[in-house]
Amino acid sequence: MEDNLEKIFAFIVELDKVKTVYRQTYILGEDRAENDAEHSWHIAMMVPLLSRYSNEPIDEGRTVKICLAHDLVEIYAGDTYCYDPKAGEDKEKREKAAAEKLFSLLEEPLKSEIYSLWTEFEGGKTPEAKFAAAMDRLQPLLLNLERNGRSWIQHGVHFSQAEKRMSKIKDGSEILHKAAISKITEAKNKGWLISD
Amino acid sequence: MEDNLEKIFAFIVELDKVKTVYRQTYILGEDRAENDAEHSWHIAMMVPLLSRYSNEPIDEGRTVKICLAHDLVEIYAGDTYCYDPKAGEDKEKREKAAAEKLFSLLEEPLKSEIYSLWTEFEGGKTPEAKFAAAMDRLQPLLLNLERNGRSWIQHGVHFSQAEKRMSKIKDGSEILHKAAISKITEAKNKGWLISD
Repeated sequence: MEDNLEKIFAFIVELDKVKTVYRQTYILGEDRAENDAEHSWHIAMMVPLLSRYSNEPIDEGRTVKICLAHDLVEIYAGDTYCYDPKAGEDKEKREKAAAEKLFSLLEEPLKSEIYSLWTEFEGGKTPEAKFAAAMDRLQPLLLNLERNGRSWIQHGVHFSQAEKRMSKIKDGSEILHKAAISKITEAKNKGWLISD
Repeated sequence: MEDNLEKIFAFIVELDKVKTVYRQTYILGEDRAENDAEHSWHIAMMVPLLSRYSNEPIDEGRTVKICLAHDLVEIYAGDTYCYDPKAGEDKEKREKAAAEKLFSLLEEPLKSEIYSLWTEFEGGKTPEAKFAAAMDRLQPLLLNLERNGRSWIQHGVHFSQAEKRMSKIKDGSEILHKAAISKITEAKNKGWLISD
């Protein structure tokens, strides 16, 4: 048991690297990008706040754990900006290799248990994975609106691109999807997203 | 419902402030302090990794949610360094006022639901709260060891102070407490903690 515990401690220490994987979203209180640990905390925290709007009943605890683990593979694979089609091409391959490397630091059955949180998110089939994906899209939207569309303007994002990205929210929550579309329409009207 | 949803969105945006509340622990990949969002993410992620070592069976999902919410009140009350007795004096009063201010941004029944995550942690009575508190003490220990005791050295922390702080881990997990004591003893032998 003691040897196994040391392996888990080493894994916990390795996960600290998530705090230095930076995203394209900006936090609100400082002039800097958000990192994956902050983002994952935020979307996990959103689950109990918004679960009542899920299309289907969800296991909140499982959904929260999926949110916590959904970006872990970026420790080795890096963050792929959602509006960068080139970087998106080999994303799946890079992330699968990263997952194998990362989760193999754990012994079974823990390895499979933690690995499954990531594969469930990637699969996007369960109500919990769908709701986690909705949180993953909604959170940067809320921050970006507070920042007057800074990240969209910086990357010249079109309304149709944002609309396509938000469509995933619908699988998790029709109500939240409707709210998201209303918000990006407002952003387009303000000139933060390019009209198509 | 739409009006209520806007209130929840505003609460989610307010919570972003947790990303700029800095602690006395250092992250590993950059030369900077850890913030509350990163710390909360890390201890929540530790729950499924270490729950098998809990003294009592715990509801993992509830424990994870308690971890996510345990430091929210620091948005208004600030971080209180655990080895600063002066700042600790009025901590309870400051945090209670902060909790009332923060959670009142939500409508019932959501307000009580989220508020209860914090009060359960503060109460420290349930198996879930005890295990969350153990994670809260264990995580900075693991990071500080990797940093060659930087934070302890900086504040001249004595072994007896660290030992007292680690005693809370015992309520959540005898096994993890034993491991923590072994680690701080090692830290004392290396000169990172002052012998009493």
